[in-house]
Amino acid sequence: MSAYDSLMAKQKDIETIGQISGLLGWDQEVMMPPKAAPLRAEQMAWLSKTRHRLMIDPEMGELLAQAENEDDGKDSVRSGNLRLMRDAYDKATKQPSEFVVRMARHKSKSIISWTEAREKNDFSIFRDDLATMIDLVRELADLLGYENEKYDALLDLYESGLTVARLDPLFAGLRDSSVPLIQSVNQSEDNSNDWVYLHEWSVEGQQKLSHALSEAVGFDFQAGRRDESTHPFCGGSNPDDVRWTTRYDVKEPWGAIFGALHETGHALYEQGRPRNLDFEPSGHANGLGVHESQSRLWENQVGRSLAFCEWSLPMWKEYFPKNMEGVTAEMLWRAINQVEPSLIRVESDEATYNLHIMIRYEVEKLLISGELEIDDLPDAWDDMYERYLGIRSPDRKQGVLQDIHWSMGAFGYFPTYTLGNLYSAQLLQAARNDLESEGHTLEDDWRKGIFTPLLDWMRTNVHHRGSILTPADLIEEATGDAPIPEPFVDYLKDKIGTIYGLA
Amino acid sequence: MSAYDSLMAKQKDIETIGQISGLLGWDQEVMMPPKAAPLRAEQMAWLSKTRHRLMIDPEMGELLAQAENEDDGKDSVRSGNLRLMRDAYDKATKQPSEFVVRMARHKSKSIISWTEAREKNDFSIFRDDLATMIDLVRELADLLGYENEKYDALLDLYESGLTVARLDPLFAGLRDSSVPLIQSVNQSEDNSNDWVYLHEWSVEGQQKLSHALSEAVGFDFQAGRRDESTHPFCGGSNPDDVRWTTRYDVKEPWGAIFGALHETGHALYEQGRPRNLDFEPSGHANGLGVHESQSRLWENQVGRSLAFCEWSLPMWKEYFPKNMEGVTAEMLWRAINQVEPSLIRVESDEATYNLHIMIRYEVEKLLISGELEIDDLPDAWDDMYERYLGIRSPDRKQGVLQDIHWSMGAFGYFPTYTLGNLYSAQLLQAARNDLESEGHTLEDDWRKGIFTPLLDWMRTNVHHRGSILTPADLIEEATGDAPIPEPFVDYLKDKIGTIYGLA
Repeated sequence: MSAYDSLMAKQKDIETIGQISGLLGWDQEVMMPPKAAPLRAEQMAWLSKTRHRLMIDPEMGELLAQAENEDDGKDSVRSGNLRLMRDAYDKATKQPSEFVVRMARHKSKSIISWTEAREKNDFSIFRDDLATMIDLVRELADLLGYENEKYDALLDLYESGLTVARLDPLFAGLRDSSVPLIQSVNQSEDNSNDWVYLHEWSVEGQQKLSHALSEAVGFDFQAGRRDESTHPFCGGSNPDDVRWTTRYDVKEPWGAIFGALHETGHALYEQGRPRNLDFEPSGHANGLGVHESQSRLWENQVGRSLAFCEWSLPMWKEYFPKNMEGVTAEMLWRAINQVEPSLIRVESDEATYNLHIMIRYEVEKLLISGELEIDDLPDAWDDMYERYLGIRSPDRKQGVLQDIHWSMGAFGYFPTYTLGNLYSAQLLQAARNDLESEGHTLEDDWRKGIFTPLLDWMRTNVHHRGSILTPADLIEEATGDAPIPEPFVDYLKDKIGTIYGLA
Repeated sequence: MSAYDSLMAKQKDIETIGQISGLLGWDQEVMMPPKAAPLRAEQMAWLSKTRHRLMIDPEMGELLAQAENEDDGKDSVRSGNLRLMRDAYDKATKQPSEFVVRMARHKSKSIISWTEAREKNDFSIFRDDLATMIDLVRELADLLGYENEKYDALLDLYESGLTVARLDPLFAGLRDSSVPLIQSVNQSEDNSNDWVYLHEWSVEGQQKLSHALSEAVGFDFQAGRRDESTHPFCGGSNPDDVRWTTRYDVKEPWGAIFGALHETGHALYEQGRPRNLDFEPSGHANGLGVHESQSRLWENQVGRSLAFCEWSLPMWKEYFPKNMEGVTAEMLWRAINQVEPSLIRVESDEATYNLHIMIRYEVEKLLISGELEIDDLPDAWDDMYERYLGIRSPDRKQGVLQDIHWSMGAFGYFPTYTLGNLYSAQLLQAARNDLESEGHTLEDDWRKGIFTPLLDWMRTNVHHRGSILTPADLIEEATGDAPIPEPFVDYLKDKIGTIYGLA
């Protein structure tokens, strides 16, 4: 057996453990009875310990070096696998086990203090743990190494190859267009959506509609499931076993339905992974940014379009005859596209969302570089909200304490949400170039419930490409351009402009 | 660390893998989308390969020998653990991997030919594979070793220490009383239960009643679940995560409701395992016979009693108001206790069931000893049905081809079903001796929906004892007697005699 083949045989065990952990993780959120938590944690710990032991096995390192030497670069899959295994091996071996334990312990501790601080609306409870966490992630960045900015090492954890140098211009482009757009919306007339709150929205109707929409856009229920969970997510085990969840609110159905389309977008990506690369790193979805592009595509670009509302209106009326009485597609479309600056990221709309992310990105940069002191953080946060969104939090709970991410050490994670939005628009524009013609737009398809051409395009240009290339290279291969903000900015201006009559 | 402690640390990994496999197995039957089967098989194979590798690790053998030498026998848990680990180690190491592979391959092959033979009602399709399977289990028996009968080595796989010498008198006692009892029933008047078939039984009602009865007898839904599956079973992961299933038939509710009580019995045993022995072999339930005693106890001894019918009647009426109109507790009791000789084991009643098992036991003994030729098997089967049950199968499908067990190589398994029935009656009699008094029977409790005294008795005398002792020793400790058929025979005579007026 060649070094490469031996390596891939070892990798198969690592991948199998990952699949098993995926299933246990899903079960934990969706099915597990409450008392089972402690022993489930032991099972998960055993899987993760066993996986880690295989990953840092010195024989793995030797085989990897040998296979890299033998690689002639002619086979892109092989090179992709080697790149990804090298990256995983280095990331795992550069962290001494003493550090891994210290980090894991501090995560458990600071999630607890964050939870308490948020409940009591008191930043001081979380302050020391956050300060230690920032020290720890700075230490992590040093262990992992970086070329320019310390923060780059953290960004790279969630999107391979992502740097401040690449992100700054993207956020600048977004900021320069979004801030004035939102100001114009604020000065325009109110969008009345009282009809939404006249009746309760039955859980059964929401379940059926979520299911039907997911199936219609292409989710294969023979290779996956829909369930309910407190925090919606897409998980499961492998492309034949993709499980997404949503949650139901009888007051307003948007969370359930657009959450379902969002998770379906993730799920379509997973179901579309290249099946000749099962158990190979290159066969995986390509990082968080590209993943989020697929969820945002189906949730927003497709799901919140007027054409989609026109097509789906009869389904809405079937499952909610009373609620939807007298509601037109345009009324539905306006209701699901309201723009309003708000304090809470997870409740924010498509136009303001990226500003929430940009604020976190700017704050993280300053915290990691040491330019912002921990004690100045809460006010710095509020100042940025005031500057970019025109609103200021009256308390810490709706300000700096709102997100769990930092308590888990997830610095560098937030930007992938915005990358997802940018990529989705850029990919959709490229798909339009290929699929649209004089007198035929993708909206003409969607209005008839035809989603296959767009899904097939994503299958070919994104899903089937796995992570053979880096995320940025994949976007460039698929669209002809490096990641850019313009397609998203244009999309937003066009849609919001129409809805709010901004000309 | 002592040899024993090192051994237990290794054992913990083996146990953890077992817990994970349990969850994946449950998911496979209950939740998994159809296309996920092939990759799930890979996950299961990896778990079983990893577990097997840990079990046959030579270091395990050395530690075991050392710990056995160091054991002074004063701690029954430690001795139980050593006995069980020795048994597992020997069983795993006595089978060469070549044999294990050959057996696994032949199982896959013969399950297919059995399925086809049964569908086509043609024994000849299965004949050669069954003959090879008999050769394989004989080979297995030789590998494992035995003192008297070859068949003993196979019986021991499913109930530790079980032998022909122990089983023969049990079946003889059963046969001598059951055969005349059933003949008397056949000559008595018919029990009319037309009311059962007047209306459909809603699935929702069956779900709610199953759930309510399971909870009432003591199943903890905070540490387990109820779901639906094609083949009802009790599975899950550990005492905090016990998952049972049932299935629903709108024509007749008995399968769902008494299936639910049956699986609840298994589940109560799992939830009652000694929690100071998590991750230790002694902490497990004690083999198939004792397990079946707990399912039969709640399904039959308790669930099919007149007292239980009296208590549960209002619940039946709540969930099935139309179906139960005018039905009395006695009518319900008679309907669920009908006795009628039939050809199919899984559809048979409490009185005839053990004769179905006895026939299989007698046939297996003859096949393993070589006294019965494969080509004589189908008719020998039918002859025994005629002799003991007074009926003869018109075809092979309802005769020798009805059970899947032999195609899977599970020779020696069937007798544990009957052991379960015998143990359940013997344990209940012992519980009565402890709990009943002049003027107070357990039925007085059940009639009021009070099941805790009986459950607590089982917890103390069976569940909490794990498998510290062998099954036969456990029964003797709990009841004061080695396993005997009399309590079951008396129970059956009494109940069937009353229902059918046999005096």
